Amino acid sequence: MQAGDNNVKSYPRISAKKLRGLCRTGEFSGPTSGLASGHVQANLMIVPREYAFDFLLFCQRNPKPCPLVEVLEAGLFEAQCAPGSDIRTDLGAYRIYEHGQLKKEVSDIRHIWDTCGPDGLVSFLLGCSFSFETALVEAGIPLRHIQQKKNVAMYRTSIPCVPAGRFSGNMVVSMRPVKSRDIARAVEVSARYPRVHGAPVHIGNPAALGIRDLALPDYGDAVDIAEDELPVFWACGVTPQYVAELSKLPFCISHAPGKMFVTDLLTDDMCN
Amino acid sequence: MQAGDNNVKSYPRISAKKLRGLCRTGEFSGPTSGLASGHVQANLMIVPREYAFDFLLFCQRNPKPCPLVEVLEAGLFEAQCAPGSDIRTDLGAYRIYEHGQLKKEVSDIRHIWDTCGPDGLVSFLLGCSFSFETALVEAGIPLRHIQQKKNVAMYRTSIPCVPAGRFSGNMVVSMRPVKSRDIARAVEVSARYPRVHGAPVHIGNPAALGIRDLALPDYGDAVDIAEDELPVFWACGVTPQYVAELSKLPFCISHAPGKMFVTDLLTDDMCN
Repeated sequence: MQAGDNNVKSYPRISAKKLRGLCRTGEFSGPTSGLASGHVQANLMIVPREYAFDFLLFCQRNPKPCPLVEVLEAGLFEAQCAPGSDIRTDLGAYRIYEHGQLKKEVSDIRHIWDTCGPDGLVSFLLGCSFSFETALVEAGIPLRHIQQKKNVAMYRTSIPCVPAGRFSGNMVVSMRPVKSRDIARAVEVSARYPRVHGAPVHIGNPAALGIRDLALPDYGDAVDIAEDELPVFWACGVTPQYVAELSKLPFCISHAPGKMFVTDLLTDDMCN
Repeated sequence: MQAGDNNVKSYPRISAKKLRGLCRTGEFSGPTSGLASGHVQANLMIVPREYAFDFLLFCQRNPKPCPLVEVLEAGLFEAQCAPGSDIRTDLGAYRIYEHGQLKKEVSDIRHIWDTCGPDGLVSFLLGCSFSFETALVEAGIPLRHIQQKKNVAMYRTSIPCVPAGRFSGNMVVSMRPVKSRDIARAVEVSARYPRVHGAPVHIGNPAALGIRDLALPDYGDAVDIAEDELPVFWACGVTPQYVAELSKLPFCISHAPGKMFVTDLLTDDMCN
């Protein structure tokens, strides 16, 4: 927990708007998992306007890893899914990349907006698995990384995304161990949420995805898999960030891992 | 029927590839409804690269009237949904608009491609109701405009689309009279095809859509509505063309009405 986050126990019940306000004033800058419960949280990716068509096309061609929650018009920073928001200040932290390299992490990107001109940047909000995880837990399917207060385990796979313009790369997946008896139910429940990754992309065989060792995730934390469980893989919202890195854009910005944009949308309303 | 179309009786069974070839050589230039049966047909919209992001965003925000079948990379003219195709020659006719005005109808747009440079134009293929109409007929729901060999009746409504960049305007809908006893079934069947407009947007009350007189469609041909029928309205692929016209783009190209791009995709594969 960061300084100023000592009130975090009361945050599951906090409104999305209030949580965004605490990020804006710097009173909160921690991970958002489990906070403002019931609200859709989103990955953020900001690209220069000249790459926005290619990036939008990439998302359109790869809806499972890149489900669009909202795309803001060039230059805008108030999301329609969160009236009164400012995506330049309302996240806990931002990562700035140059030519595919992480340059720095900052808590406010208003100065960059000023530098890039009134319509220089386009912001993409992409669905995040936090939403369907709540639905899984409510359906009686326990999730080990939540029980153990870890970040979910994520892996780069050998599954190519459909390329678009200068964007290409393989899919990143998240993995959750699920008891064999619960797997069909986990598929059914997550399939109801196509705007937050939907049904799993693969069940049971990491090697088929080019994953050599589940104990060595590329992002997040490893968790054990019990005898009566299989690893279940979902398309992951880290994919667009990974692909943006690979594409060596001169410049792009994303949220810092786990510190998502919290929208006013209700997860229940995202359900098919 | 146009000159050279006298073989049209055999066209329901023609392959999509062969039909595109006949368009390319000028041997066929008629409406494509009912031809190469079972294959997805698409609306075509071509915009200059600088408007492509806004137009893609418009489609993404309005998926019912603008369901994307494929977006080609800037400058490309072979659709992935139709290997070997050339979208510059493989449609019966094209309409060229300048500043929102129809300027001319041509059968080949290769010369425009040459003028606009190697990546000057972006082509959008959008779902077309011909696909779900086949499914409705197969489900035992007769469609009067097909029985009467008319074009479907289409109306501009008072329902605003979600704007994007310079694109804004109201939705265009198509109307089909359906017997009251068949309406629920018509909803179920068309809902299975979200990539070709999906379920109806409205049933029964034209005035609620701002339509004053069903006998005076804005596009296509009027049909009678019988005592035991209600008018059923679906979002229509003419919407993006209408919106592009309203937006007064310096320049854009669409297919000529009823003369669609015939893909190799099977309608059955578009089913949810």
